Amino acid sequence: MRIFHSHRQSGHAPRREFHNGDWAAFAETPARVTAMLAAVGPVEEPTDRGLGSVLAVHEPSYVEFLQTAYTQWVAAGREGDALGYAFPVSRRRALVLDRIDAKLGRFSADVVTPIAAGTWDATYASAQAALGAVAAVLEGEPRAFALTRPPGHHAGADYCGGYCYLNASAIAARALADAGRKVAVLDVDYHHGNGTQDIFYESGDVFFASIHADPATDFPFFWGHADERGEGPGQGATLNLPLPRGTRWAEYERALGKALEGIAAWGADQLVVSYGADTFAGDPISHFQLTTPDMQSLGAAIAAARLPVVGIMEGGYAVDSLGANLAAFLGGLES
Amino acid sequence: MRIFHSHRQSGHAPRREFHNGDWAAFAETPARVTAMLAAVGPVEEPTDRGLGSVLAVHEPSYVEFLQTAYTQWVAAGREGDALGYAFPVSRRRALVLDRIDAKLGRFSADVVTPIAAGTWDATYASAQAALGAVAAVLEGEPRAFALTRPPGHHAGADYCGGYCYLNASAIAARALADAGRKVAVLDVDYHHGNGTQDIFYESGDVFFASIHADPATDFPFFWGHADERGEGPGQGATLNLPLPRGTRWAEYERALGKALEGIAAWGADQLVVSYGADTFAGDPISHFQLTTPDMQSLGAAIAAARLPVVGIMEGGYAVDSLGANLAAFLGGLES
Repeated sequence: MRIFHSHRQSGHAPRREFHNGDWAAFAETPARVTAMLAAVGPVEEPTDRGLGSVLAVHEPSYVEFLQTAYTQWVAAGREGDALGYAFPVSRRRALVLDRIDAKLGRFSADVVTPIAAGTWDATYASAQAALGAVAAVLEGEPRAFALTRPPGHHAGADYCGGYCYLNASAIAARALADAGRKVAVLDVDYHHGNGTQDIFYESGDVFFASIHADPATDFPFFWGHADERGEGPGQGATLNLPLPRGTRWAEYERALGKALEGIAAWGADQLVVSYGADTFAGDPISHFQLTTPDMQSLGAAIAAARLPVVGIMEGGYAVDSLGANLAAFLGGLES
Repeated sequence: MRIFHSHRQSGHAPRREFHNGDWAAFAETPARVTAMLAAVGPVEEPTDRGLGSVLAVHEPSYVEFLQTAYTQWVAAGREGDALGYAFPVSRRRALVLDRIDAKLGRFSADVVTPIAAGTWDATYASAQAALGAVAAVLEGEPRAFALTRPPGHHAGADYCGGYCYLNASAIAARALADAGRKVAVLDVDYHHGNGTQDIFYESGDVFFASIHADPATDFPFFWGHADERGEGPGQGATLNLPLPRGTRWAEYERALGKALEGIAAWGADQLVVSYGADTFAGDPISHFQLTTPDMQSLGAAIAAARLPVVGIMEGGYAVDSLGANLAAFLGGLES
């Protein structure tokens, strides 16, 4: 399977995040990439396809914010990585704001997603890796994988959050749909892919299915509840399957069956899979009980749908097992 | 002038806030109360009038959250004061959430408003002080003041923020309106009173006028822009007069004239004044240039409207000058 990745993605390295009431070490480290590269063999540097496909998903004001936020932060005399402190929880709208702290709140959903010196370059390269995989599939490959990092599925059209800045899965799905494919996104990260859901919630031309930890107990809390089904033309094109902490493969497999049924019923001819390895039993910040062999079963069950697949890497924080889990998933996908 | 205050309000004493990318000392200290009490003479302990008037403004789920959040935080094994880290910036709605971090995000707008052991008791007592002033005016006093603390005007129907938990000004305005008065809230704190605005934005039976620092540069950033005029039955009943940093009394007085004109045109027969002393030139976190004599002029200009006044204390962080500024304002109000 062709795998796309850019070394530029490792230039994003925030030092810490604000979590559960205090500073914590930033969990989404460049070491994740090192671990995955060691396990999956050679990768291709993606061609730079520019901002067109990014702007098909993200608001221009948000993209400009990501490009300039760190510079503005430094210009304001701040130390460390840029982080907001106030959020537009009510009556959110386009606003012209001067202060970097205002912009950080306007374009962020949390305080675990700092903007560091290398953030824009890394998230842009990550989006290009996704577009590389899209191009490969449009050229006839049955499947391709983008080893994206930072992840993307928590990023909305105009907000970063959950370690995510540009939403590679949404960018890939939009590009495939614009090329004529009938696209379903299947999100199998431990956490709900709220950004992807938000982006397509009212569109109706991309189906979004997600299996994830119950947001009543797990991030992102405010999205991913079972009653969220899409709105307007998108009514029925969102399918959320939250599962309790402690979920093992048997229960997970049943939810996966439901997701794939929903995708088949909708008539998708193209899958985008947001893959997170944080469903693994040993993940330090997550609470499912999947094993490394289960990752192969997951890939195989998706392959059995017999649809072209663009795979996108999302979370997974058990660094020592990350390579093995990703290799098992990709192995299943090729079966 | 009768002044209402409870010693219970000083039981709220968070240690620190998260601000501009890092921890900072909590600016809204109990020392503010000590400074004001020394300057204004005897105060009355308010009668406890219960939760009815509070629940006329705030959602029951939010009130329950404020009552229980600190206990849940401790039960979750956390140290320090309760603070959220993720916020529902999109598709906000009523949700049943289990985890304290989820609830903190659901019911907060920022990370500068920690919930400490004494927070509920203090904000409840503060609301009772406001209701004491309301009762005094309804009994015929031309004016009464509630020495409220913590402040309230940034708190919405279902969120805390900007050092505010229960919104004493909104609770007072609602109680006065329910008693048959035609109420206008005049907010002269340095920061926009977004919570009060939100609470009455679509109601139409309470007018809200605010003079404050331009939210493009100053907290709360996402509210208080001049184009916010109310919606539905509330269309036209909100008047925002943002002013630039560095504003002195001459410019401030012009904005005050516009606010009072708007209030008169609306036909108010009762004022609630949200008074912040943070328009003072020496305020450590604010950027207007009013002097202590200007505070007297402010009070006198409001008194010239010849309407009954319930005054509510909001911000003001230059502790050494706080008593003198409040005394000057109250002196002007009685002129």
